This record gives sequence, C-alpha cells and structure tokens, in this order.
Amino acid sequence: MISAHVFIATSLDGYIARPDGDIGWLLQRDDPTEDHGYADFIADKDMIVMGRGSYEKVLTFDAWPYDRPVLVLSQQLAGTPVPQALKGKVRFTNNTPTGVMAELAKENVRRVYVDGGRLVQSFLRDGLVTDMVITTVPVLIGSGRPLFGALPRDIDLQLVSSRSFPSGLVQSTYRLLS
Amino acid sequence: MISAHVFIATSLDGYIARPDGDIGWLLQRDDPTEDHGYADFIADKDMIVMGRGSYEKVLTFDAWPYDRPVLVLSQQLAGTPVPQALKGKVRFTNNTPTGVMAELAKENVRRVYVDGGRLVQSFLRDGLVTDMVITTVPVLIGSGRPLFGALPRDIDLQLVSSRSFPSGLVQSTYRLLS
Repeated sequence: MISAHVFIATSLDGYIARPDGDIGWLLQRDDPTEDHGYADFIADKDMIVMGRGSYEKVLTFDAWPYDRPVLVLSQQLAGTPVPQALKGKVRFTNNTPTGVMAELAKENVRRVYVDGGRLVQSFLRDGLVTDMVITTVPVLIGSGRPLFGALPRDIDLQLVSSRSFPSGLVQSTYRLLS
Repeated sequence: MISAHVFIATSLDGYIARPDGDIGWLLQRDDPTEDHGYADFIADKDMIVMGRGSYEKVLTFDAWPYDRPVLVLSQQLAGTPVPQALKGKVRFTNNTPTGVMAELAKENVRRVYVDGGRLVQSFLRDGLVTDMVITTVPVLIGSGRPLFGALPRDIDLQLVSSRSFPSGLVQSTYRLLS
C-alpha cells in the first residue's frame, strides 16, 4: 500500500513562492534554532516526487538537498538525460500522478513525499494525498504561486495536530477525509 | 486613537465564501459547544464596518446579529435609505477606509471590527489594520471569495497566539508589523 504526504510552507495568504518563484521571504523567516519537524517527516519516506518548477528551483541551491530518490513529473523533462551529478538520485517521468503512484507501488515504494505547489494540487485533485503538514509563515506577500488550486469537489480535512513556534510559524497537520 | 481589528474564518485554501457567497460549508462545521472567542473579541469594539457584500449576506439571516452600530462602506448604498427595521443600527457611507477611520475617530469611536473579505483587503492595503484573528476551517473548497488580495508591499506579521479546537478549527492571532 502506497501513500502520499505533503510537507510545505506557505505565507498566511496562501503562496508558496512569489510570482517569479522567489522564496527569499520564506528563507529569511526560517529560524535555524527551531526544529520544524522536517527530519522527522522525511525519516519514513522512501521517495520524493516533485514537479519541474520545484526541481529547477532546487537545482539553483548550492548543494542537492535530498537524501531520498527524487522523481520529477514533467512532460518536458521526460526523455531528456538526467544531469551527470544527479545520476542515481533523480529520475524523470511523464506519467500522471495516479500512474506514478501505481508505478512506485510496484517498486515497493511505500511512503512518498509530494513537494511543490502544482504537483500538490494535482495529487489533491486526484485524491492521492493521505495527509499534509502545512506550515504558515507570518507574512502576507500579496501575490505568487498558490499552494492550493481548483478542485472537482470539497476536500474534508481532519486536524491531527497544530503547534506554533516562537518565530511565529504555525504548523498544522491534516488528514484527508474525502 | 482609533484602531481596526479583523476576526474572520477561512477555509484552509483561503476562501471566506464560495463564488456565489455561500457559507454553508462554514456554518455546518461550526460546533456551537465550542467558544471561538467572538464574544470576547466584540466586547471591546465600538463599531462594525463592512462592505456591501457582507451587509447583503447578513440581511438574509433570520435576525440582525449585531449589537454594535454598523457602518456599511458602499458607493452603491450611500445616499439610499436604510431599511426601516435597521434605523439607528446601520449607516451607509461612500467614504474610503482611511476617510471612514478619520470620521469615526472624530465621533470618539476607538476600536472598529472590520468584517468581510473585500473590506478587509482594502483596510490591509491602506495599512489600517492593527490585528487579525484568523480561524482556519479544516476544508478545501477549491474556489470562492478570497480572504486576502493583492498588496502594494509585504505585510509582516507577529503571531500573538494560536490555538486549535476539537472541531479542527485553528485560530491564530496576528499583529501587523508593517
């Protein structure tokens, strides 16, 4: 049985990045002395799936930050070679979210971390997300790339837990009910 | 010195109502056995200001719910008569948010409750909001009337407190820093 899990930060007005992808507003509010639970979250995940937007953002970082295999869902990248430095760490696919989950299940992947706004939206639309850890950053940025998008129907959530940090982050964990 | 305060509920995806104004999704998740703090919030407010959208929504309720004077900011309603049943309870104005605050300050109004999505957005854009109590309802509705909107610049927030309820509501209070 395979399941998909979200761990993502958003401005209070619901953006994961500015219109141009900038996340400086997020990074500058990250207090490195606070443990926001990412290490605990990722500890039991076998695989990370992301869209091209997140992948290309991560490529601009100084170092590749993931110690889990990454699958990039992208029509555009599928069929192109993975950069030499990322061989064995990254794969590209043009499969759909549902197709990807079936494919990964066959590889005995059990728990998948879904990263990136548009991919989270796709997984939500297709009913593939089991739970979400949403960390709300105390800022309004006014515009940007939204965390959530249109849905074919309401998605009922169960609040599992909520906590706040001295830095002003509020982190809530939701289980999807429908 | 006059100040403006927000107390509002939103879906996790940032909507205060569906596209047609429906708030059934919100009302059906309201647990009347929980005290979400509205009585405490309103206790020290002298006046409620809202836009036409909120006013017309409230008119559809069985009874007028407010025991504070209400000022409706509306170009369209300004100059029209207030309904007989609401005389003394409601006024209409075509003043701007900044103008309204100056006008109310002269009347010795001290603390104003700003209600309704578009009016909250206007007050935020004009730098008129002192603090906000945001109650997040555990549901994604996919589309609707957004709580927040475009801004001329980032608004930094200080988290004052955050709490969650057995029903799954998460209520966070923010003070505006810029």
